[in-house]
Formats: sequence, structure tokens, C-alpha cells
Amino acid sequence: MSNQSSQVIIGNNVIIGKNVSFGNFVIIYDHVEIGDNCIIGDFVIIGETSNPQASTSPLTKIGKSCVIRSHSLLYAGCTLGDFVHLGNRATIREFSLVGNHCSIGLGAELQGNCVIGDYSRLQSFVSVGQHTKIGRFVFIYPYAVFTNDPLPPSTQLEGVEIGDFTQVSAGVILLAGASIGKFSLISVNSKVGGMFEDDSFIEGNPGRRIGKLSKMPFFNKEGKRHYPWPYQYSTNMPWQGLDFDDWAIKENISLF
Amino acid sequence: MSNQSSQVIIGNNVIIGKNVSFGNFVIIYDHVEIGDNCIIGDFVIIGETSNPQASTSPLTKIGKSCVIRSHSLLYAGCTLGDFVHLGNRATIREFSLVGNHCSIGLGAELQGNCVIGDYSRLQSFVSVGQHTKIGRFVFIYPYAVFTNDPLPPSTQLEGVEIGDFTQVSAGVILLAGASIGKFSLISVNSKVGGMFEDDSFIEGNPGRRIGKLSKMPFFNKEGKRHYPWPYQYSTNMPWQGLDFDDWAIKENISLF
Amino acid sequence: MSNQSSQVIIGNNVIIGKNVSFGNFVIIYDHVEIGDNCIIGDFVIIGETSNPQASTSPLTKIGKSCVIRSHSLLYAGCTLGDFVHLGNRATIREFSLVGNHCSIGLGAELQGNCVIGDYSRLQSFVSVGQHTKIGRFVFIYPYAVFTNDPLPPSTQLEGVEIGDFTQVSAGVILLAGASIGKFSLISVNSKVGGMFEDDSFIEGNPGRRIGKLSKMPFFNKEGKRHYPWPYQYSTNMPWQGLDFDDWAIKENISLF
Repeated sequence: MSNQSSQVIIGNNVIIGKNVSFGNFVIIYDHVEIGDNCIIGDFVIIGETSNPQASTSPLTKIGKSCVIRSHSLLYAGCTLGDFVHLGNRATIREFSLVGNHCSIGLGAELQGNCVIGDYSRLQSFVSVGQHTKIGRFVFIYPYAVFTNDPLPPSTQLEGVEIGDFTQVSAGVILLAGASIGKFSLISVNSKVGGMFEDDSFIEGNPGRRIGKLSKMPFFNKEGKRHYPWPYQYSTNMPWQGLDFDDWAIKENISLF
Repeated sequence: MSNQSSQVIIGNNVIIGKNVSFGNFVIIYDHVEIGDNCIIGDFVIIGETSNPQASTSPLTKIGKSCVIRSHSLLYAGCTLGDFVHLGNRATIREFSLVGNHCSIGLGAELQGNCVIGDYSRLQSFVSVGQHTKIGRFVFIYPYAVFTNDPLPPSTQLEGVEIGDFTQVSAGVILLAGASIGKFSLISVNSKVGGMFEDDSFIEGNPGRRIGKLSKMPFFNKEGKRHYPWPYQYSTNMPWQGLDFDDWAIKENISLF
Repeated sequence: MSNQSSQVIIGNNVIIGKNVSFGNFVIIYDHVEIGDNCIIGDFVIIGETSNPQASTSPLTKIGKSCVIRSHSLLYAGCTLGDFVHLGNRATIREFSLVGNHCSIGLGAELQGNCVIGDYSRLQSFVSVGQHTKIGRFVFIYPYAVFTNDPLPPSTQLEGVEIGDFTQVSAGVILLAGASIGKFSLISVNSKVGGMFEDDSFIEGNPGRRIGKLSKMPFFNKEGKRHYPWPYQYSTNMPWQGLDFDDWAIKENISLF
């Protein structure tokens, strides 16, 4: 038993910004860039190779002001934007792109070649198959699963697409190739395949479109309609403190 | 390659009881108390802060005779009772309270501000949202999920409550604010919201009360009714070797 | 911050083959054998004891050419065949047997005393209860759960059995004692108990046999029937580059 300083193993060709803090027992592999003001937790691996035989490693890039929680793992070839938060034991596999201000929850995994738009939040244990595309301001709740093989087993991989502002509830399973529009909500534990237009409320096993989400009787405690949700919720969103319509017009976001 | 002794990093203001054993590469942060006879596994973190900018840490307390399996993680401000068992990669987030004789399975997470009563068992990968209250002698099976947001996303968090002696089967999703009585059983893969009285058998998607659990035709191999289960099962329970009714009277537990 | 070599802690009575590579912060406990050409990742534990009080450890054996990804964990008493791949954070608990050429995905767990046949693949976060028996060439998709207690809680554990070539889709929950024949497919999110004959397509909650899988209208992009799948898929399977029927005859595998 002893009182020691941290042990950080750093490979070749690594660029570390200003004011980056490292936990204990951290491993940074070759060809990694870490932006200013990042916090890297204990037992974290950055730049793990997906091919142990490869002699060179693609660039792994972490933007500024990211928090990488303990025990999490970022494969070589990934890019995290600025202000990204990786929860404990999150895994981002090779060549995934995570936008600015995203958070990836405890134990969640991106299986590789995934794209996540800015300000999206994946909660604990979300499992995202290869080639999934998730838009901006998308929230995904625990244990949602994004599959990609329509005929298991096959080599015919088809990623899922999720439109901006859509909410995917806990335990939802998205079938290979599913495409969900913007400003939609998929209800807890649904199994969803096929294409759904914007503003859909989707529920069931198999999931069907119950109707326009914006017309569904989902009211908050003050008796206001909750959807479209950006009028009711703005915590850490770019329209926080602003009128959502004003912000949306400036950003060229059309509601429906 | 070398043969080394363990590396344990210990912060300030840490009190360690008698006969505590540590694995390798263990990190104990500031302001932690560990009771006598605990076993702390490899790659464990105790007292991780939820706020990397904070200068002081709330007390993290582990009772006596606990087993903390490898790769698990206990945040600052949590309290574990005596004889608690944390499985590999379990995560207990800030300000959670885990009672005596509980076990928290592999990969399971308590998201913070959770309360778990004595002798409860959470199996692998159970995910418990903030502000959940789980009673005593409650068993929760793999991949059960406790949600807390009735209108995602909102700030209107409502924890789930589970009564004493209730069983929550694998893959169950509990909706925000659900309240389940005592001595109940929720069937596999059900999606359950709302309030349910004691002695309920709950099944379906959405979950409905099928009837009194104690009247359901669940018989064991000897042809005896299995519920209320404490008459049939006592492994490591405080009534082991005793008559359950005698014990329950002494403990002031009324059946129904 | 420093640039250090790997730290590998190796117990007594450990036999390591030729050309084995170790990552950083690796722990190999007593009585372990590792075959030639294995790759052991960072933060891996091999031979963890299930009984911290035990004085001796049963043999833990890893065959040749295995890849053990970072953060994964193999308990004492397990045997992995040759060419096995353990994904990041996989856990294999005590006395499990994993056949040659298997892969166990990220975060997946075998809870102990499990048997997995050659060439089977468990994807991310599959949870396999004690005493499960999985055949050869079985593919199991994310978050499938194998339970083993028919009357929770009881001591009447009944493992699940899965026949050769069967596919278990994402989110499936198998009830204690379920027995699934060969060349079958269980659809996404089904809850399945009881016995099912070979060539079954199983779907629903509760899961029912919809019909013979080989007669179901599952066609690939070229318009061919996808099942029995070995005629359409052979990546890394022993019949790759061969005619499946020729291979099957030689191997004494009868279709139905």
C-alpha cells in the first residue's frame, strides 16, 4: 500500500493541449490529439487499435473541454468534438464521429463508423450498431439498441437513421435500416423497423405510428403540451435563455 | 513483464479498518471510510467525484465485511452498509444508500440518490435511475430498467418505488413514478407504470395486474405454492433456519 | 506524466506460450496457462477467484491465438479454446467452457458453468445465466438474456439450451429451462420459454412457433431464401470457400 502519483503511459505522435488533467493508470496510444482543458479519468484508454497487427494508427482526436470518465475507451480513428462527455465505461469504436456537446452515457457503445450530431445525449448502456447515423439534439434512453443486420447473419449491413430532436425511449430496439424522422418519440420497449415521417409518435411491438406527436395528449404539470419538447426543455441546449422560435429561425431549423 | 506487488493509491482523510485487503491498481480518493474485513478487488475506484472541479469531497463510507469486485466504481458521497457485495464493474453513483447484506450485480448501476433496503439483490446490468427507492428483500433480475422522466426530456424527475419482498423479473422497464407494493412479482419483459397494491402479479406491455400473486398457480417441484416466496426460499436471508412466520412476527412484518 | 513500459503482474504456476503479447496493467493470477500467439489487452484480469478465501485456484486455460480485449475478465477455472476473441469488458465466470473460434462481445457475460460450442458468436452485452448450453455456430445478438430461475427466487436453477446454427436476435429473453432446436431463429425482443423443434421461426411475447424457418419468406437482396443461413453466409466459418453440403456431409451434420 502506498501513496503514489498517477501513471500515464503516452505513445508516440501525441499532442496534448493546455490544462489537460489525467487520472491514474491512463493509456494514450500513438497518434492522438487532445484539446485544451480536457479531463481524462482513471483507467482510460485512448487510441486503442482495432487491428492488433497494424503498424500505424489513424488519428484519434478529442476536442477541447471534454470530460472522459474513468474506465472509458476510445478506439483509434475516432473524433470527438468539443465539450463532449463520455460516461464511465463508455466505448467508442473505430472511425466514429461524435459532435460537439454530446454526452455518451455509462457503458454505452458505438460499434464503429457511427455519426452522432451535436448536442445529442445517449444514456447508459445504449448500444449503437455500425453505420448508425444519429442527428442533432437526439436523446436516447437506457438500453435502446440499434441493430444493423436485416437477415442475421448476413453481410448486408444497414445502419439506422434518427432525425434531429427525436427521442428514443428506454429498451427500444431499432431494426436494421429503420429511418425515423425529426421531432418524433418512440415509446418505451417498442421494436421499430421501416420509415417514419417527422413528428411521429411510435409505439408497439411492432412499432406503429400512432399519430402526430405534436397532437398527442402529453401535457406537463403546468398543463402545457410537452411536444415539440424544445419549447419546454432547454437545459444545456443552445437555445437556453432564448425564445426557441427565434433561435430556430436564426439556425434555419423548420419545425414542420 | 515483471512480478510486482499491488499498487494502491490512497488519498487524504481515508480511514481503513482492520484486515482490509486490496487488489492491484486500486484508487481510493479523499474522505473515504472502509470498515473491517473488506475485500477490495483490482482496478476498483472508491470515492470518484461527480464534479471534477470540486475542491472537497463528501464522505464515502463502506461498512464492514464488504466485497468490492474488480473494476467496480463507487462515487463520492455513497454509503454501503455491512456485508454488501458489489459485482464486477458495478457502479454506484453519488449519494446512494445501499443497505446491509445487499448485492449489486455485474455491470449494474445506481444513477445517484438511490436508496436500496437491506438484503436486496440487484442482478447483472440492472439500471436504476436517480431517486429510485427499493425496499428490503427485493430481488431484481438482469436488465431491468428503472426510468425517472415521465416526459422525455424534462426536468420533472419521478423515481420509482418498489415495496419489500417484491420480485422484478429480467428485462422489465419501470416507468417514471411507478409504485409497486410489497410481495409482488413483475413478469419478464413487462413495461410497468402507475400504482400497484401489495400481492400483485403484474404482466404485459403495458403491465396490468393479473391478480393476487399469492393465488396464482405458481407451484414448485414439490407441488407447493411458491408465493409468498419467503416460505420457500431463505438462502442468506435472516429467517434462514427459522420459521418465516415466527421471524416475521418478531420483526413486525405483516404479510397482508 | 511519463512514458513507461507495461506493468504485468504474474502469479505462481503460470505457463505462457510463445509470442504472447501483453498490454499495460495486466493481472494474471495463479495456475493459468496461455497458449502461443495470444494477445492480452490492457487492464485485463485472468484467473480471478470466485472465492476470495480459497487458498488454491483451479486451472484457467486459454488456447492458442486468442485475442483478449482490454478491460475483460476471465475467472479461475474457465477454459477458452483456440482462436477465441473476447471483446472489451467481456466477463467469463468460473468453470465456463468456450469452444474454438468463438467470439464473446463487448460487455457480454457468462455467469458460470456455461458451455459454448465452437464458432459461436455472442454480441455485445449478451447475458448468459449459469448452466446455459449453447451449441456450435450459434449467433446471439445484443442484449439477449438467458435466465435460469423458473420461480424467482428459488434454488431450482434450469439452464437454457440452444441448438447448433440457431440465431437469437437482439433483446430476446429466454426463460429458465427453454430448449431451442437447431437451425432456428428467434425474432427481436421475444420472450421464449419451453421446447421448440429444429427449424423453428419463433416470435412474440410469449414467443410462439410461427412455422418452419426454412419456409418463411425471408429473402436476401438477390432474391434467395436466407435460411438455412449457412448457404448464404460463410465469413470465418469452416465451410468458407467450400460447398456447405459437401462440408456438412463430411462433418456428419444433417440438415433436417
